[in-house]
Amino acid sequence: MPPFRRVALIGLGLIGSSIARAVRARMPGVALAGHDRDADVCETVRRLGLVDEVAETAAAAARGADLVVLAVPLGAMRAVGEAVREALAPGAVLTDVGSSKQAVIDALGDLVPAGVHFVPGHPVAGTERSGPEAGFASLFEGRWCILTPPDGTDPEVLGRLEAFWTGLGARVERMDARHHDLVLAITSHLPHLIAYSIVGTASDLEEVTKAEVIKYSAGGFRDFTRIAASDPTMWRDVFLMNRDAVLEMLARFSEDLAALQRAIRWGDGETLYRRFEASRAIRRAIVDAGQDTPAPDFGRSH
Amino acid sequence: MPPFRRVALIGLGLIGSSIARAVRARMPGVALAGHDRDADVCETVRRLGLVDEVAETAAAAARGADLVVLAVPLGAMRAVGEAVREALAPGAVLTDVGSSKQAVIDALGDLVPAGVHFVPGHPVAGTERSGPEAGFASLFEGRWCILTPPDGTDPEVLGRLEAFWTGLGARVERMDARHHDLVLAITSHLPHLIAYSIVGTASDLEEVTKAEVIKYSAGGFRDFTRIAASDPTMWRDVFLMNRDAVLEMLARFSEDLAALQRAIRWGDGETLYRRFEASRAIRRAIVDAGQDTPAPDFGRSH
Repeated sequence: MPPFRRVALIGLGLIGSSIARAVRARMPGVALAGHDRDADVCETVRRLGLVDEVAETAAAAARGADLVVLAVPLGAMRAVGEAVREALAPGAVLTDVGSSKQAVIDALGDLVPAGVHFVPGHPVAGTERSGPEAGFASLFEGRWCILTPPDGTDPEVLGRLEAFWTGLGARVERMDARHHDLVLAITSHLPHLIAYSIVGTASDLEEVTKAEVIKYSAGGFRDFTRIAASDPTMWRDVFLMNRDAVLEMLARFSEDLAALQRAIRWGDGETLYRRFEASRAIRRAIVDAGQDTPAPDFGRSH
Repeated sequence: MPPFRRVALIGLGLIGSSIARAVRARMPGVALAGHDRDADVCETVRRLGLVDEVAETAAAAARGADLVVLAVPLGAMRAVGEAVREALAPGAVLTDVGSSKQAVIDALGDLVPAGVHFVPGHPVAGTERSGPEAGFASLFEGRWCILTPPDGTDPEVLGRLEAFWTGLGARVERMDARHHDLVLAITSHLPHLIAYSIVGTASDLEEVTKAEVIKYSAGGFRDFTRIAASDPTMWRDVFLMNRDAVLEMLARFSEDLAALQRAIRWGDGETLYRRFEASRAIRRAIVDAGQDTPAPDFGRSH
């Protein structure tokens, strides 16, 4: 028995459309409704046949669903919450996939009708692509999905939401919302900010042309351009909504970078070597944990 | 006819051993000699049969070669140059693969015997792996090799060295040494420095454990750990030897990052969006130029 009978996906981009595909592939019999505020996205989802019903409004999609998943940028959460609240039946579960959890609790907490179970979530998965055509059914396989249930969440509800994510191939972890936001600030938000920043730096040089940057990017730069190609709206909202944790991690990063800068300026090779040597162990641990491919160069074809 | 009859490889790590493999695969009939100061590396190369002769000294490998390639960390260039100079025959070509070209010219320029042609080079290729077992024959295919010939270099010699690299599958570009160092500072050296730095930052946190950083690294962080797993000796030397260009690029990066930091602090979503939006075009151009895979997520298997 699947943990839910009717799932509503509000937002049908990379994540929403991947959930749709994964449900289709792995939970036959579950009814899928969807809505996106972008009519072109709705049309694409209809054409691809990703859900049973593409509804005209978020409320229409949510009506009758026992799981409603908000898969929209963080800045749109409150508006979408206001749009669906009247359609949420008692006993329904409301969740989301946003990358900052306290922000979602702040945006939605006071909107949730009595009798509706609100359990924020975050599947740590994605690619640099956006939109419904970029999604795929195996996106969540072997990835972690973090749930940040408020105190007093019904264990039965939590169990069903966990079963939903494990059913899509993910592994589930529970966490306090504020701790989630700190963990993601260092593992995801700061890396994206740095990637966006260095791509900007490289684009604005006078002595080195953009054509040269592109041509010789295999020296390392190209790695950064991948995550810097991610959806700008989503990431703008992440930085605005997880501001304090991002600024905290950024301050630490800047300190550490300044220490390396000083070592370079003063020719302190020992400090550089010691810092660089330590990084290999982290890479190894990530590969051992199944969180990245063991193939050199990410397995890029040569 | 291959452009050289006998090639000597001094240094048999990732790059040296990949040259050996590529010569074997693509230039049959060329004699290969090699030497590495690490006896274990010599033993591995002997066992793998990558060259015709693993010599006991750098000079013994270089003797009789019409092309001598120095594939050692930048900090070892001068010592290796001193070791091979007596073995270099008039007419022989001496080149290298170092990632900073002015430093190599400074290290070797006054050592090169009269009649020997010294043409510094840099294949912009590699992986995060090190050592002779990490090399492979196709490493240079479709990658750029930058030559920085001094004024007055014999065009016939330059043509032969170009033919050597194109024979290994690379595309060749000529450049002024100082300009090379600026281009690589932004396309390669700064990305590596930033990657090493953020991996260090993530390892040293109190609120977030190392286990959590590893577990949730798929959010973006894992991309940085790849290049931060590169050879620490090689990279220490790059930063010490291309100091001025790296510090210049680092200063610009820090300015740009501070601007994003300010935008986050003051909630300036428009600035963030504008900067992030621009990055997609660079990624597209890199993929279009054949410098990265078009597959999402670097083509990692899902």
